[in-house]
Amino acid sequence: MRDKIDGMPAALSPTPRSTIRKSARARSERAALYEVLDAALIAHLGVIVDGAPLVLPTTFGRIGDTVYVHGSTGALSLRAGTREPVCLTVTLLDGLVYARSVFHHSANYRSAVLHAQARLVTDPQEKLDSLQAVVEHLTPGSWAHARQPTAKELAATTVLAIDTAEASVKVRSGPPVDDQSDLDAATAWAGVLPLHQRWGPPQPCALLPEGSVVPAHVTERPSPG
Amino acid sequence: MRDKIDGMPAALSPTPRSTIRKSARARSERAALYEVLDAALIAHLGVIVDGAPLVLPTTFGRIGDTVYVHGSTGALSLRAGTREPVCLTVTLLDGLVYARSVFHHSANYRSAVLHAQARLVTDPQEKLDSLQAVVEHLTPGSWAHARQPTAKELAATTVLAIDTAEASVKVRSGPPVDDQSDLDAATAWAGVLPLHQRWGPPQPCALLPEGSVVPAHVTERPSPG
Repeated sequence: MRDKIDGMPAALSPTPRSTIRKSARARSERAALYEVLDAALIAHLGVIVDGAPLVLPTTFGRIGDTVYVHGSTGALSLRAGTREPVCLTVTLLDGLVYARSVFHHSANYRSAVLHAQARLVTDPQEKLDSLQAVVEHLTPGSWAHARQPTAKELAATTVLAIDTAEASVKVRSGPPVDDQSDLDAATAWAGVLPLHQRWGPPQPCALLPEGSVVPAHVTERPSPG
Repeated sequence: MRDKIDGMPAALSPTPRSTIRKSARARSERAALYEVLDAALIAHLGVIVDGAPLVLPTTFGRIGDTVYVHGSTGALSLRAGTREPVCLTVTLLDGLVYARSVFHHSANYRSAVLHAQARLVTDPQEKLDSLQAVVEHLTPGSWAHARQPTAKELAATTVLAIDTAEASVKVRSGPPVDDQSDLDAATAWAGVLPLHQRWGPPQPCALLPEGSVVPAHVTERPSPG
């Protein structure tokens, strides 16, 4: 294992709040963190607004050890996110675990949780790079294909940088784990029902010129899993 | 439209924090809230721990106007959830929206956000009913098929009740919305790449007796969307 990845320690260093109780499901490698982040299409951003948590879905991107989220300058969650700590979580649901007891029913999943003080991105180059990362994460190939942002569009967009220094990764995979007495009784079926994400056929915008061809970065996009 | 659903007003009554800024995407009917909640396999629960937000994925269930989440009695998020306000969010990602400008790229999704003070479920019957709702939400048919919880298992499980009185629902669907100048330029493809969730073939546990048949509640489970 390398000592460093993107200048960060390759091993995640848990703090109390990023320590996972069921340690068998914890992953301690930074590479696993990046894998889970990169595989997820959206994240859930948690901020504190008037003393209460607010959790909203958001697109995101990653450059090295930093995750970026963006939105309108008017977005409540982004304004709150610069004042108080944030939490960004991504979850990939891989399947459902049917056990012999309802108690041991579970889900197979990969999740990553970041704890950070978000930073408002003000440097013009970092802002442009981070927006490219967000667009390329959600729709690879679109940054080069579509029209680039104007100065006005950039001014209407807020970007937050979220550090990945304090993070945890949790993975459950494999079959149900049942009690021996339930294995012996053998009265129920048990196993995993895998869940996959698949693209449907692209739906071209009705306002495209006749004969418009769907580009390869859309038609050949690999399924997310 | 009915006046009441499950004894709650059929119209969602927005508070400042449950008011959606882009009102064209807001849904104000309680029925839409339940539809989105019922269609989602997992939720993200936001709690406050030591003054910082913590967002974790969780399974959940609904009975009438109440959403239930459960976990180990040792779970940090559930202990924190009874002391301070919580936020429970579900998101269904329906597709990616490729626009003619990167600025108008977007996602088609349905999301629901609940704001509440969670209540620890202590009544034995409500606890059992809520666990049944959680199991039947994640794996319909399992409550009757698998072994029911023992008193010891129930004692090891914490259930929180989350009220749906303060909630918002947001839906984006349809094609990209581009600027007229980009429509005129017609230099980029635009459209929607739909995203679907599909079950893979069930993977029976290797410890099942030979000849075990996969039950109908697993083989005939409809795809989640």
